[in-house]
Formats: sequence, structure tokens, C-alpha cells
Amino acid sequence: MVTSKTLIFAHVPQGIPVAGKDVTVEARPVDTDATPPTGGFVARVLYASFDPYLRHRLVDAAGARDFPPFELGASIVNGVVVEVLRSGEDSGLSKDDVLVGMGPIAHYAIIGPQDAVTFQKVQNPFNLDLKLFLGPLGMPGLTAYSAFYEIARPKKGEKIFISAASGAVGQIVGQLAKREGLTAIGSVGSDAKLTILKEKLGFDEGFNYKKVDVLKELKRLAPNGIDIYYDNVGGKQLEAAITALKDFGRIVACGYASQYSVPHDKQYGVRNTGLVVGKRITWRGFTVFDDGFGNKYAAEHQQNVQKWIHDGSIRPLMSVTRGMDRAPEGLVGLFRGENIGKAVLDVWAKDA
Amino acid sequence: MVTSKTLIFAHVPQGIPVAGKDVTVEARPVDTDATPPTGGFVARVLYASFDPYLRHRLVDAAGARDFPPFELGASIVNGVVVEVLRSGEDSGLSKDDVLVGMGPIAHYAIIGPQDAVTFQKVQNPFNLDLKLFLGPLGMPGLTAYSAFYEIARPKKGEKIFISAASGAVGQIVGQLAKREGLTAIGSVGSDAKLTILKEKLGFDEGFNYKKVDVLKELKRLAPNGIDIYYDNVGGKQLEAAITALKDFGRIVACGYASQYSVPHDKQYGVRNTGLVVGKRITWRGFTVFDDGFGNKYAAEHQQNVQKWIHDGSIRPLMSVTRGMDRAPEGLVGLFRGENIGKAVLDVWAKDA
Repeated sequence: MVTSKTLIFAHVPQGIPVAGKDVTVEARPVDTDATPPTGGFVARVLYASFDPYLRHRLVDAAGARDFPPFELGASIVNGVVVEVLRSGEDSGLSKDDVLVGMGPIAHYAIIGPQDAVTFQKVQNPFNLDLKLFLGPLGMPGLTAYSAFYEIARPKKGEKIFISAASGAVGQIVGQLAKREGLTAIGSVGSDAKLTILKEKLGFDEGFNYKKVDVLKELKRLAPNGIDIYYDNVGGKQLEAAITALKDFGRIVACGYASQYSVPHDKQYGVRNTGLVVGKRITWRGFTVFDDGFGNKYAAEHQQNVQKWIHDGSIRPLMSVTRGMDRAPEGLVGLFRGENIGKAVLDVWAKDA
Repeated sequence: MVTSKTLIFAHVPQGIPVAGKDVTVEARPVDTDATPPTGGFVARVLYASFDPYLRHRLVDAAGARDFPPFELGASIVNGVVVEVLRSGEDSGLSKDDVLVGMGPIAHYAIIGPQDAVTFQKVQNPFNLDLKLFLGPLGMPGLTAYSAFYEIARPKKGEKIFISAASGAVGQIVGQLAKREGLTAIGSVGSDAKLTILKEKLGFDEGFNYKKVDVLKELKRLAPNGIDIYYDNVGGKQLEAAITALKDFGRIVACGYASQYSVPHDKQYGVRNTGLVVGKRITWRGFTVFDDGFGNKYAAEHQQNVQKWIHDGSIRPLMSVTRGMDRAPEGLVGLFRGENIGKAVLDVWAKDA
């Protein structure tokens, strides 16, 4: 029996969640010496992912939208990298296997057979940092990759606008766009992110959406319009992008983070949806779990992006929260836009 | 030289155009005995089409959106059925040929070579009413047909919601949907239209959007949601439809007539575009002139819909304005939603 600090959904938030009130850390006992369930395993959690969509799960039943709510008082479950301590019968696993899948954000986890199916062994021929398998090489990276090719259908010479451009998905979309010969314009929420966008991530242009009129800025940076809008935020930036799109433009509807903490009937009203008709816009939502997305692109995504990270042509930007005690702040900071890059928790790190 | 009454764009309207002020009829001289231009022809206009998109062309340069504005003081040009009086050299036409194309709404027209390319000879093996070649067999019918198959991708057993359901496009979409084994729900703007929708056009369900809460009505008529929304009106009905759509729903963005007379920055703000993500909605605008729409479906549309009108399995609903003197009222009535069915002008009809 060990004590396992665990990230807990403690209270239904109003607006942006509050660390220590809505999400908390509790020490809970885990019997790591018990026989693992058949088909499951006992694991030590190494890294956990913080993702914007988690906001949808920190609700009560009445507030549930795209995802099932977490149970109050229970652990918050998300993408994790784990190492196997003890493997159950018929699990096909061995001690010290490194896996990525969906598990509790905690020091230790006992994974039953139903949850075990979400886990895959990490294939890591270049010995890349394991954190990357929650970012560019994980769900956000595959999200970026699959929708970029499946919905945006990029053509050399086109212009793409990406919101939340230094985030987990946006940073990969931008770097893929540059590889394909597109002009990449990104929006971010701070000047520090803007500097990184141009200097580290290689975007051609960018702006801090809090400091400019987004539509004017898009018209200045792309006077003839944009071909693709990769939307991670919705709201006012979406409206500006619709106006900036050229005929036959594409909108990749990946997220609407600017509205996640806003009640449904108070969300930003997009006034120019009529332009979808005249501009012949294709606007499509997806999740990486849909047929034709993750499953269609997973192999080439893994092969290409591992190689491109190894050779330095894709540069990951990670925002690391150190240690379980800081997990609530790390998660809530994500909803406030405070992280720069893909947000992950280094579960066992000690304070720097 | 004859006198040809002609529909004129006389004044830029504020809101809904006013007959006799913004659109007027003027008698203008046309020299029907002059030698026609090479590649062109002189014609007698038989029928003219009134279409909602004409509102976009009754603007000044500052107000122009999806279409070029008409010239103030000049004739209003739209789909017409004509008979050839005199054919120009190299036109490939003969006297008495019946054509459909884009020409002035007037008693007579002299068509130059550039405009002549928009005209085609009417192929009419079943000797159907020529007015139908401006409706179910013309641009609105092809609009309905092409986008229904290309964007909506109907599957037997699905539910489709169609706004402006008794209109030129909606009435054909609904009847095609019934042929394909779908459940068709239509919205209209009057009780008279609602009666016709169910009794003549064969829709399964319908409602007068002015008398109900559209979202509640959709939830009542389709408790498990709709699969397809064929949008002719935008605004509040669009917003309700997005909420009513099932996962992987499709929106055919054909028009947004509820907002055509509203300035851009005052149009209805759609608050639930975030649902496009979670529901994985595909939302696509088009015009019938785009590659992959009209040209892809024109032959089968003509062949099938002529046959289905002839055998009575598609029942056209036409709203006929009689005579050039009534043309301004007929056009403006369309913008007020007063017509029942596809609006056309019978250019030479005398008062009943």
C-alpha cells in the first residue's frame, strides 16, 4: 500500500475553475502490491496531459455538452504516460513497459481491463523525451495532423490562420503548414507567446489577439484573404476569420476555447455566418477519435513527426508543471491561457 | 421600334425594397427590327424569374456582398424564358427557338454575344409548362438537386429539416427527400403555406416559424434530432437547427434570406457555432454555378425531374405575377415572403 497524490474534481466551477476549490490534490491509498486485475495492470504515472477540452468534463449533468462529466470527488482522468509495475494475466504487458493511454492524474494507478484498451506501448526508436508522447506525438499532435490534411487540404502557396497558435495543436499545425509551403499566421494571447511563435515555431506572422482588432490585423497581414482557418477558440476570432476567408475557404473546427467557460446561451454570437453561402466555405468539426481521422493518419503521423522532431525540423514547445502538488494550478492555468506550449504535468518532479 | 416595359433598379432600398420607389417599371424603346448583333439575338421575353438573391444586387457599391450590384437606372437582369424573334450571325439560333438564360425583365430584349452564352435551348420532350424551366427545371431546381446530393448525402431513414420549405428550392429538396426515403420537416412563414406543405408537397411535418419556438418545435417533431439541415434563411432557424442536429449532421448553406435586408453588423448572432466541433458537423456553402454542382448534376437533374413532374411524382408549386405592370410588386412581395411557391413573372399576361 502506498499513498498516491491524486488530482480530484472537488466542486463544479462557475466560469474558470479555481485551484484548491474546484480541483484539488488528495493523498489516496493505492495497493500497488495487490494482484492486478486480469487484462489490466498496476502502473506508476510518469507524465499527464492537461488539455482544454477537460473544461467540458468539469461540469454537472445539467451542464454537460460534448463529453461526459467527471464524477464529483473522483480523480480527473486524461492522457498519461505510465510505466508498468505489475501486469495482470492476459494483459500482454511486462514490468517496465512504457505505455500511453487514458488514466488518472496521480502518482500511481490501477488500470482495469476496460481502461487498459486505451493504452498502447510507446514506440520510440529515436529515444525522444517521453513527455512528447502527450503532445506532438500524442493526441494533440494527431489532432493537428489529421484535420490539417483531412479537412484543410492544404495547397502550396496558400495562407493559413491558426488561433491558439502556440498551443498543443496550433504549434504543430503551423509547423506542418510551413513544411507544406504555406504562409502561416498565428494568434496568441500574450507578447511572450508572440515572440516564441515567430522565433522558435517559425510562423511567418502573428499577433496578440488581446492587443489588436483581429479583423484589421488579418486584413493587414493577408490583404487578399486567407485560405484556411484552423479554429481552436471560436467566438470573435472565428467571426473575423470568416470575414477574412477567400472563396472556397476551409474552416477546421477543432475547438472553441474562448467560450468553454461561458454558459451556452451567453456564448459569442457570430453575425456573419451568411458568408458561408456566398464564399462557398467548407466548415467541418471533428474529433481525433472519429473514423477517418486518428485511425487514418496515426501511422504516418507517428513515423513523420518522430523523424521531424529528431532531425529538428519540428520543434516542440512544452509547458511543464512540476510535481503533483502543483497539478491544480497547472490545469487551471491552462484555462486562463497562462501556459506557453503544450501543457503537461511531470508527476514526480521535485520543485526546481 | 417597339415600346418595351422594363423592370428598373431606380433607387437603393433601405431594408425591404419598396415597389414604385426602389424598383419601378418604365417603358423603354427597343428596336426589334434592327439587325441583331453577331452571336446575339432579338427576343420576346415570355417568363422571368424572381429570386431572393436579387436582394444582394439591389445595393450600391458600398453595400455589395456576394454579387455585383445592378446599375441604378438600368434594367434588372435575371433568369428568363424567351423566344427568338431575329437571330444574329453565328448565333446558331433560329426564329421561334425557345431559350432559357439571363436577360432583362422586360417585354423585349436585345441580347449581345456575351450574354447569349448564358442561354440554352429548352429541351422539353414532355411539353411541360415553360414557366417550370425557371423553377424546378431551372436554376432553383438544379440548386436543390445538386446540393442535396453533393453536400447533404442523404441516407434512407434520415430526417431532414428544410427552411423556406415551400419556396423555389425548398419544395424540390423536400420532394427529393421523400423520394429517397427520408422524413421531411419544413418551416414556412404562413399558415396557408403550411397547409400546402403537407397537403400538396408531401412533407411529413412542418410549422409556421412565426408562430412557434423553432427549437422546441424541432425537438417535438424530431426528438432524437435531425440529420440534415437545408438552410435557406440563416439567423434564428439556423441556430435552432444546429442545436437540433445529431452527431455528424450536415448543413447545406444555400441562403440566408432572413438576413438579406439587414446590414452586415446587425445580422443575427449565432451563439452555438461551438457545437460544430463536438457534433462533428459538416457545414458547406455553394452556388449552383460552382464546379461540381450545376455542371455535375445538370443532365440527371433535367432528365429525372422532367420525368417526375410528367408522372406526377414531383408537384411544382409556382407563384405567378401577371403582367409587367405588376413586376415591382411581384419582386418585392418575394422579399416579404408573400409568394407561395417559386415566384415567376408571366410577362405578357393580362389582368385576370
